[in-house]
Formats: sequence, structure tokens, C-alpha cells
Amino acid sequence: MNQDITFYFDFASPYAYFAATRIDKLAAAHGRKVRWMPVLLGALRQETGSPLPVEVPIKWQYVQKDLLRSARLHGLPYRQPPGFPKFLIDPARAMLWIRREHGDELATAFARNCFGANFGDGVDIGDAEVLMGIASALGVDRAALAAGIKEPAIKQQLKEEGEQAMRRGVFGVPFVIADEEAFWGFDRLDHLQAYLKQSSAGQ
Amino acid sequence: MNQDITFYFDFASPYAYFAATRIDKLAAAHGRKVRWMPVLLGALRQETGSPLPVEVPIKWQYVQKDLLRSARLHGLPYRQPPGFPKFLIDPARAMLWIRREHGDELATAFARNCFGANFGDGVDIGDAEVLMGIASALGVDRAALAAGIKEPAIKQQLKEEGEQAMRRGVFGVPFVIADEEAFWGFDRLDHLQAYLKQSSAGQ
Repeated sequence: MNQDITFYFDFASPYAYFAATRIDKLAAAHGRKVRWMPVLLGALRQETGSPLPVEVPIKWQYVQKDLLRSARLHGLPYRQPPGFPKFLIDPARAMLWIRREHGDELATAFARNCFGANFGDGVDIGDAEVLMGIASALGVDRAALAAGIKEPAIKQQLKEEGEQAMRRGVFGVPFVIADEEAFWGFDRLDHLQAYLKQSSAGQ
Repeated sequence: MNQDITFYFDFASPYAYFAATRIDKLAAAHGRKVRWMPVLLGALRQETGSPLPVEVPIKWQYVQKDLLRSARLHGLPYRQPPGFPKFLIDPARAMLWIRREHGDELATAFARNCFGANFGDGVDIGDAEVLMGIASALGVDRAALAAGIKEPAIKQQLKEEGEQAMRRGVFGVPFVIADEEAFWGFDRLDHLQAYLKQSSAGQ
């Protein structure tokens, strides 16, 4: 049994941001480590034939309110960046490149800081300067990263990680897989917690 | 301000069943009364262009597990009726007819018993005999009800209630509207509770 937990997310998703603020601590409380894996929600939705929330006006209007309410109820800072919602691909590619070049720990720190900037501070990480600034603050070389996110191998890896995720049953974000159990949505972290508790009690 | 709460549901939805087991008590704790309103999820989804969960295999596989887990975590009896999932229109029409002929209280009791039979006991309320039996146990005349659910006026009312619901922002079930606030999903009853608490404290 794989003791790790995989946390699938899209940098563009506020619900993924909410989950990102909680997932590591939740896992650590049960002796688990989280592997963060960026995927593109657009690609997942294309596969399922489901429109994105923003494409359904009656739903999007609701989601906008639900986001504010969720943030308030869970005590999380939440500010929408300029241009929200928009597709974000470069942060995901950057994270994969940083993981390859600098290891998992730095890549996860980068992802965490990206989420915090984008939805905590409301700063657009789709802006290349902002994105490079976040990486640079962690000691990553800007020029190398700028070249890295254009590498065909990195682009291909992001695509393949998405396909691999779908083969594991991922169809939305945030999505957590712990052992063989799947948890979709920020609002299923309570299910995850119950599972981890039961799972660690059974060992 | 309308002090009542409207609970929109489709008899075919297990998540609506979960919500149905909790909604009255939750509202009553804050001095509110719930108006139960059947709508047809199929019609709502047609409007939004979103496929039903069962139409997306990767999602449906997940939902099946999530239902069992949700029931277990919330301590709710859950048994899938034969033929699940399937469209259920007659129970909705029956409820509207009972409301017109026997009043709101009996109609809500009927709806509650339908949900309990269908998903608590796993008995198919799409079966006319089962449905009539549930109504009959509440003192409703079987023959009159059987004729009532075929009335054009009742069919039309169900259609119009769905359209009216969509105008209020309803795009899925279960869906609760309290005052002007909207709550979608069994997993948003905690948001509803927080709202009602805040709302009654502010009076």
C-alpha cells in the first residue's frame, strides 16, 4: 500500500486553493505525506463532457457566492486576482520543472506560494513577472525557469500527468487519492480526514 | 423578508434524500419552517447543458462510492432501490396533487416517506403500487391519487415549479433557498446552518 497521498489541483481553481491551505497539515496529523500534482481542469472537463462552472451562468453566479462564503466559514483569506477566472498553464509547467531541477520540497513550496499569491493576495500568477518573482524568492533562477516552462518535455509531462490522473479516476479538482480512496472537492476533506483516521487506527 | 426556507429536490437524488433527513430539524432549530418543492433534475440539467452524473462514467463510479461514504459518515440508512438510478416523475406529481387536495403537511409527510422508502429501505417508488401504498398509509385515496397524477394541471404545475426554481437560481438538487441565500448540495447544509445562526442572532 502506497502510504502517500496525491493531491491533484489546477492553479486556476479557488476550491483547489482552499484545499491547498489544509491538505499537508491534515495528512501530517495522520503520519502521511502529500504529493502535489498539477493537472489542467480544462483537459479533464473536455474528457467528461462537463462544461466548466464559468460556462454555465446560473451556476457561476452561485459559485462566486459560494467561494466567498466558503472562505469566510473556514477563515481563509480570499481575493480574486485580476482577470479571474482564467486558464493557468505556466504555473503548472513551472512546478514540474522546479520539481525536476530542484526536488519535490521546493516544487511544493512554489505551488503553495503560487496559490497564496493568486487567491490569498489576489495577485495574478498568470503574469510572467509575478510567477518568476515567486520562483526567484525561493532561489530559483529566473532565466532557467523561463526557458524550462517552454521545454517540450515539460509540456508533454503535464499532459501525461493529466492522462495518468484520469486513469486513476480524477475528473475534477481538487481531487485527493489516498491509497485507493478518492476524494473530490474541498468539501470532501472531512471524508478524507475520517478515512485517514480510520486507516491509521487500523494499522 | 420571507422567513420560510424552500427545499428543492428530485425524488431520484440520493443526495436530496440525505438532505431531506436533516432539513426540517436544522430549520426548526432556528425557528424556520421548510417548504418542500419537487423539481426534475433532468429538466434543470437540460437548461445548464451539464450531463447527469450517471452519464459520465468516471464521475458516476466516484459518486457511487461517495454516496456510501456520505451515508456512513452521517449515520444515515442508505439502500439503492432496484433499477437505480432512474427518473422519477410520478412521486413529484403525486406530492403536488396531495398538497393541493390535502394540504402542505400531508404532502411533506408523503415526500419524507417516499425518500425513506426509496433510499432508506431500497424500495422502488417508481413502482405504482409502492407509491400508492405510501400515500394510502397516510389516508390518501388510491384511486383519486392515481387519477390526480395524470391531471394535465398537475403535470403543468410540476413543469412550472421547475421553471420558477430556475428563475430563482436553482440548477441542481438538493438546493435550499433561505431568504435570498442559495445553498446547493447536501454538503452545504453546514453553510445553511451558519447562515441561519447568524440570521437569527441578527434579529
